[in-house]
Amino acid sequence: MKKNLSELAIWGNSPIFENQIPVGQINLPSWEYFCDSFHDLFERRYYTNHGVLTQEFEEKLCRLLGTRYALVMTNATIALSLACKGLNLPVGGKVIVPSFTFAATVQALSWAGLEPVFCDITHHSHLITPDTVAPLLDTPGVCAILGVHLWGNACDADGLTKLAKERDISIFFDAAHAIGCTHRGFSIGGFGSCEVFSFHGTKILTSTEGGCITTNDDDLAERLRNLRSSYGRRMTVPIPIAGYGRFSEAQAAFGLLSLEDFPKNCAANEKRMHLYVEGLRAVPGIRFLLPTPGERHNYQYVVLEIEEKEFGLSRDALVRILEAENVLVRRYFVPGMHRCVPYKTQFPQYMNTLPVTDALCEKVMQVPSGQRVTDGDITVICDLIRFVHTHAKKLKGALPKREEPQQ
Amino acid sequence: MKKNLSELAIWGNSPIFENQIPVGQINLPSWEYFCDSFHDLFERRYYTNHGVLTQEFEEKLCRLLGTRYALVMTNATIALSLACKGLNLPVGGKVIVPSFTFAATVQALSWAGLEPVFCDITHHSHLITPDTVAPLLDTPGVCAILGVHLWGNACDADGLTKLAKERDISIFFDAAHAIGCTHRGFSIGGFGSCEVFSFHGTKILTSTEGGCITTNDDDLAERLRNLRSSYGRRMTVPIPIAGYGRFSEAQAAFGLLSLEDFPKNCAANEKRMHLYVEGLRAVPGIRFLLPTPGERHNYQYVVLEIEEKEFGLSRDALVRILEAENVLVRRYFVPGMHRCVPYKTQFPQYMNTLPVTDALCEKVMQVPSGQRVTDGDITVICDLIRFVHTHAKKLKGALPKREEPQQ
Repeated sequence: MKKNLSELAIWGNSPIFENQIPVGQINLPSWEYFCDSFHDLFERRYYTNHGVLTQEFEEKLCRLLGTRYALVMTNATIALSLACKGLNLPVGGKVIVPSFTFAATVQALSWAGLEPVFCDITHHSHLITPDTVAPLLDTPGVCAILGVHLWGNACDADGLTKLAKERDISIFFDAAHAIGCTHRGFSIGGFGSCEVFSFHGTKILTSTEGGCITTNDDDLAERLRNLRSSYGRRMTVPIPIAGYGRFSEAQAAFGLLSLEDFPKNCAANEKRMHLYVEGLRAVPGIRFLLPTPGERHNYQYVVLEIEEKEFGLSRDALVRILEAENVLVRRYFVPGMHRCVPYKTQFPQYMNTLPVTDALCEKVMQVPSGQRVTDGDITVICDLIRFVHTHAKKLKGALPKREEPQQ
Repeated sequence: MKKNLSELAIWGNSPIFENQIPVGQINLPSWEYFCDSFHDLFERRYYTNHGVLTQEFEEKLCRLLGTRYALVMTNATIALSLACKGLNLPVGGKVIVPSFTFAATVQALSWAGLEPVFCDITHHSHLITPDTVAPLLDTPGVCAILGVHLWGNACDADGLTKLAKERDISIFFDAAHAIGCTHRGFSIGGFGSCEVFSFHGTKILTSTEGGCITTNDDDLAERLRNLRSSYGRRMTVPIPIAGYGRFSEAQAAFGLLSLEDFPKNCAANEKRMHLYVEGLRAVPGIRFLLPTPGERHNYQYVVLEIEEKEFGLSRDALVRILEAENVLVRRYFVPGMHRCVPYKTQFPQYMNTLPVTDALCEKVMQVPSGQRVTDGDITVICDLIRFVHTHAKKLKGALPKREEPQQ
């Protein structure tokens, strides 16, 4: 470990880690399994358009998630847009959605011709709640609520569904973070009209790129099957417009291997999370966003808030120091979606209506986890953060200036 | 070969081919190359978000197509939608586009918030021309022309570009069929503001799924790079809305291998095309859509028109007989896009304005080509088509009734 402040990499010294430690990297299966699986695929000479591996992957997802249907798609953004069309949300309609979410949640609405109604969250959970949603239900043109199970923790699905039913509007969830997680003992996947998962390369269950929509609604599933490719599925049911969300056999092959390793990868990440919690327990101004006790969780993200006053430095300053040491922590979400193009100019009315979101956007960060992050790495990262806290007073104001990228 | 009419599979007999011969199937590289390439990818542990293979694939595409930029995307449909946003086509704007095209051409416009203005084609080329486009330029709200280089033959890019310039509207092309083809000696890829290619599994150059946008316009290229993923590319230029069109390293690995085999695969398909032309030369009522003489071509599709009067049977009847024999020929386009949902109800004004399109939709079919179709297969398919022609009179009216799938 660095002994003196002057040894920090932020001043131009060598970083503590020779190689960059990204916050998310791919969880690979063994090469032997990978090679066997791709050889079979190759021999079949069938590479896309709902092949046998895709069907097998869908069946296994249904079993994991306890849903009647799991429809895999090119990626989760497209899956969200297709979900909007599957739910027959009208072009020009408005959807209540958190601003504190990955950009794609809101962009997917835009691509489906819908407008976001940005909703604040509670500090405690980082999630929208019936209380934060209720005042927005009177906005003219609201046709749906899109909840986000951020960091794998579930929204109050029952409370939100009750509100949606009362108003006769749709409710669905962005569950990109929440594969394998439960809410009140039930698997996420079966809440609302449908839920959308991501299998991006950095997700704990991955098909390199990819996503899926889960539902228990027979009619919606059939509409989604028709929406998934340009020609539909013989157009057995009416849909507003076909899309393009096909999943390749290469994605399915990878997804199936990832599914086999899923319990093992979750358990390893759980251990990593505990090491971080242990290592940073004594540091003032650090709060972990931990899984809800009693629920099953995937532990894919280690998320914490930095309270500048107690920690002694802002989250942004800490991030810069860690990045210089090759610890690629990531800030979330900078800025909130209501402050991003095109929304900040299209919908300026939300600029000062989301105080919790705005506050959290200054505090939240993710630290590296996943297959390549060793116990030793975590020990070093925790030591480094404690070291920064100890010397926070001296560091404050001494850091070189940095320009923010344009948003 | 079948000797008697009664031996045809359409009556329930065994098909002439034991296995189905699809009209398009994947052109695979050798397993050894594939395995080596994926092993390298695996070792790098980097699977998506503009990795090294993606960059290499883009560079090689630029060299093949002679364009300054080639931006690879998830698939060609998404590439077309992103192109619309890159060109800043306004939501609610109208785009002149042929109805005689793959569904995704038009659906991509819809997903970008644009309306199609359906344009007829000339019988000779199956393409829109300045003459078919000109009368539509006065439609209020027209902001662009989207030409389609159908079957790899180029639209009159110069004539159409002249029209677009006169009206100060955008022009771009769907070149999904046209990789490696030339127009007046220049590679398709550099016409209009941009062109969109497909690398779907059934394309002669394939990344299993995938597509790309080519352009020589620096600003447009930078906008497209920002449009390609949810967070853009640090948002270095203003864009209307980010999209999700990322290309995985697995797609790039496959694409690079396919690129190596591309000249070989084109040459093999050229030979297949000549075998079909030879084999069906003497049959009345069959017209081939051949590559324009003097141009380079990829020969990926063998397309023909069936004139019922001279051939003795309709295209649809011939298709059914061939399908029963496991020759999976395909009809194009059934029906034209102006007769498909949602366009037939949204824009009923085009119902009777596209006589050439409507006529061709009854006549055009594609016969199997590609890596798995042997010379012997083609001989048998040609024999079969000649046999059907010889007995057309007896067959007519004797075929069992079949229900059309709902469109």
